[in-house]
Amino acid sequence: MAPQNIEEADETAAPRPRDGLFIRVYFGDGRHVGPGMIELLETIRAERSILSAARRMGMSYRRAWLLVDEIGRNFREPVVETHPGRRGHGTDLTPFGERLIELYREIEQHSAAATRSAVEELRAALSPAGRAPETTREKAEG
Amino acid sequence: MAPQNIEEADETAAPRPRDGLFIRVYFGDGRHVGPGMIELLETIRAERSILSAARRMGMSYRRAWLLVDEIGRNFREPVVETHPGRRGHGTDLTPFGERLIELYREIEQHSAAATRSAVEELRAALSPAGRAPETTREKAEG
Repeated sequence: MAPQNIEEADETAAPRPRDGLFIRVYFGDGRHVGPGMIELLETIRAERSILSAARRMGMSYRRAWLLVDEIGRNFREPVVETHPGRRGHGTDLTPFGERLIELYREIEQHSAAATRSAVEELRAALSPAGRAPETTREKAEG
Repeated sequence: MAPQNIEEADETAAPRPRDGLFIRVYFGDGRHVGPGMIELLETIRAERSILSAARRMGMSYRRAWLLVDEIGRNFREPVVETHPGRRGHGTDLTPFGERLIELYREIEQHSAAATRSAVEELRAALSPAGRAPETTREKAEG
């Protein structure tokens, strides 16, 4: 089984309904890279702190820490470095952490560019009314 | 929120650990197309029966039916047609159902082709030992 914590992070990463491709890259042994992980790294880069990043993303510090730890164990090189002596903001991405973000965002962009016409054909085939989420959820749970 | 039933179908669609891109196409209003839905349509095409397809995929008839119903309501045109007079195999894909499969598989293939070098760079950066799923799950749940 793939690690549930990272997959949940993928699901909750989008603040509003997603539009376009949602991509995870799987490596055949359960390890993968997805949008939740990448968004967490981007937020750590902005906040220079795992704690602040966790708050901004609405997740517990423990969960953010476990995610960062899991990403780090999946790859040869660490993705963050922490400067324990400093007060406050003390976590930075490593060059590999930066590269991981860059590669994932490139994968999203290249995929979107390569599939634009197929996605537009799907979009044009949608029913005009849109779905009725309540009805669907009721039926699914009923 | 996106419909949970279809997203669960995506997660459980792979019999072994996935390798390569996992793609869902979102349309900005919660509707989306993903691999679980497409695999169900392909299995219905092969089995010519929603019941047989559900069995082969290890899901309940009710769940398979709800998925097919949801796909049908998402788009202008139906994806299956049922011939109620016939005994046994009586469900076929519509031309639109066939096109839906074709477009989704094309999106997967074009994305894979457009991202090969980035994915290979990620793969080369993986730690050699591979992950230890038990440890990870323990930590995530602990």
